Amino acid sequence: MAMLIHLTGINETGWTEGFRAALPGYPVKQRSDAYQPADIDYIFTWKPAADAFVGLDNLKAIFSLGAGVDALLQHPALPDVPIVRFVDDELTHCMSDYVISQVSMHQRLFTRYAAHQKKKVWSQLYPPASHEIGVGIMGLGVLGVDAAHKLKAIGFDVAGWSRSAKTIEGIETFAGNDQFDAFLARTDILVCLLPLTAETAGILNRETFGKLRRGPLIGGPAIVNAARGGHQKEADIAAALGDGTLAAASLDVFEVEPLPKDSPLWDIETCFITPHIAAISNEQSGVRYFAKMLLDHEAGQPLANVVDRGKGY
Amino acid sequence: MAMLIHLTGINETGWTEGFRAALPGYPVKQRSDAYQPADIDYIFTWKPAADAFVGLDNLKAIFSLGAGVDALLQHPALPDVPIVRFVDDELTHCMSDYVISQVSMHQRLFTRYAAHQKKKVWSQLYPPASHEIGVGIMGLGVLGVDAAHKLKAIGFDVAGWSRSAKTIEGIETFAGNDQFDAFLARTDILVCLLPLTAETAGILNRETFGKLRRGPLIGGPAIVNAARGGHQKEADIAAALGDGTLAAASLDVFEVEPLPKDSPLWDIETCFITPHIAAISNEQSGVRYFAKMLLDHEAGQPLANVVDRGKGY
Ligand SMILES: NC(=O)c1ccc[n+]([C@@H]2O[C@H](COP(=O)([O-])OP(=O)(O)OC[C@H]3O[C@@H](n4cnc5c(N)ncnc54)[C@H](OP(=O)(O)O)[C@@H]3O)[C@@H](O)[C@H]2O)c1
Ligand SMILES: NC(=O)c1ccc[n+]([C@@H]2O[C@H](COP(=O)([O-])OP(=O)(O)OC[C@H]3O[C@@H](n4cnc5c(N)ncnc54)[C@H](OP(=O)(O)O)[C@@H]3O)[C@@H](O)[C@H]2O)c1
Repeated sequence: MAMLIHLTGINETGWTEGFRAALPGYPVKQRSDAYQPADIDYIFTWKPAADAFVGLDNLKAIFSLGAGVDALLQHPALPDVPIVRFVDDELTHCMSDYVISQVSMHQRLFTRYAAHQKKKVWSQLYPPASHEIGVGIMGLGVLGVDAAHKLKAIGFDVAGWSRSAKTIEGIETFAGNDQFDAFLARTDILVCLLPLTAETAGILNRETFGKLRRGPLIGGPAIVNAARGGHQKEADIAAALGDGTLAAASLDVFEVEPLPKDSPLWDIETCFITPHIAAISNEQSGVRYFAKMLLDHEAGQPLANVVDRGKGY
Repeated sequence: MAMLIHLTGINETGWTEGFRAALPGYPVKQRSDAYQPADIDYIFTWKPAADAFVGLDNLKAIFSLGAGVDALLQHPALPDVPIVRFVDDELTHCMSDYVISQVSMHQRLFTRYAAHQKKKVWSQLYPPASHEIGVGIMGLGVLGVDAAHKLKAIGFDVAGWSRSAKTIEGIETFAGNDQFDAFLARTDILVCLLPLTAETAGILNRETFGKLRRGPLIGGPAIVNAARGGHQKEADIAAALGDGTLAAASLDVFEVEPLPKDSPLWDIETCFITPHIAAISNEQSGVRYFAKMLLDHEAGQPLANVVDRGKGY
């Protein structure tokens, strides 16, 4: 029995030490340690290498550091065992912080005022009240629901869109492709908190932007993407910001990360860029979560937050 | 009996028509109408002229369009009758919208990221979570309490400071000059929602800024002023932003408005300027509120939201 820590581009040693402290008596190996692949019961991973799973013939589960498993599911030699993704209150909290800040910045016309300030223009344009603004959240999972509740609590008119129909108090809900247009038609600020799958790739495109409401938000609708770069067509975003289909955008994720220096997005003043920092998986909570998951599973409990490979999330 | 509408720099005719529609049978006059000053029972005013009250010998109350009465109280010939200020749910809602947007922008280090974007720098600085950030609200009146509750609901660690001691669930409260330093010492983002009085004039100064917590907010503390320009010393703000005593500021009000073109604040990239648009008195709600106040008072009810001249608010 053993747990293997296999992290690319992340402090593998730090996490390994964390798990050792949390699992006294249970062997925790990092890649540079000596171990028998057949002894590995659990692998904790981020961006596994092509040969990551070779010889792990007795694997019971894959633990994914990422909340999103889109990249992991593309692995060409993924073993057929349950994949557990990281679901973390602290990450959820930080994501809602990010979403609230971006939504309220756009509601308060911050790119407009920043442009005025640059030109030393004093022009009393009054932002609409939050209750007039339709915020549309794509994805009503762990992250989407928390953001929806908080945006509602501060006064926004919130709707959400998911694959299966849901009832959430105070939130107007839409489900499936059939209701997508109706959802967009009441949305001034569109927030993407979807997992990246074949169905959701490129969903932030020109056609989608053209269906958003042109209503109370002065200048036109805005978008916020905090999910994955693969959800957005950056050429469409640049064009839509250029011709006024969109008034503003906040992007935390990009088709290619780090965002290349020659991307036109950097220079668009109505596009607010952050470097994939909306919410990260915290080491302390990650260790606590997966150590408990491992011990519970060894004690005969079922795994939680298991990815549905058919759905892709 | 009559009501006089006396508004400077605001659509006096529009408000007059609004009051006429809301008070059928009750005479409503604007300044250009013919009327006997002695017939005026109520005056509804904003920035009254020097001779505004001449001959109004039977005045029962002054209705102030502004929520703040600092300018009105400076009037050299203010009659000794009750002053009723405007308290409006919609204005309160918009003020909280403004405060939430600015607080969450600073928590999420937006001036930092805007500067990075300008230089096309991808640097993964992680903002602190809202629960780590101490927001300190100066003024726990109608506006301060609403902002405090909403900031708390989205996760901030909120404290408030008022003149008299208060108990507000979930909010740490401080009162009076004696507790001001303790309040500042746990504050990363300082929000001013005070009335402008002799005691509060210039309170946003270098000494105050120096007492704020230098803690979880990367780069240092931030301030948000949505009350009155008279609360702030703009030379101190510019200096504090220059030497890092403050990391950022959001100012909606200024010592002189419109902010003069030669103010150094315009060019400071960590100072976010809006042109006194945090929250305005809405005509429809204003007419409804004061028409009801007048009718209730005529029916023998006491006036509400009467200004305490001793306190100055
Ligand atoms: N940028 C960052 O820093 C960061 C950090 C963490 C996570 N993320 C991203 O955020 C994503 C969402 O996280 P989560 O924990 O909230 O996921 P989750 O709990 O799995 O929820 C996903 C939601 O999306 C909906 N959905 C999936 N496919 C859909 C489709 N084709 N049409 C309509 N709705 C669809 C699901 O609908 P059902 O409810 O009907 O299944 C569900 O409501 C992650 O996958 C990850 O990529 C980004
Ligand atoms: N920029 C804008 O667009 C805009 C719009 C509307 C209003 N405003 C401004 O916002 C101000 C506040 O409005 P409000 O309706 O919330 O006022 P309010 O209900 O009268 O509340 C004022 C608060 O400030 C506290 N306070 C007053 N003097 C103090 C002192 N010396 N030390 C400590 N605390 C003190 C009071 O303490 P106590 O509770 O102990 O009395 C009270 O909690 C208005 O006066 C107005 O100037 C600005």
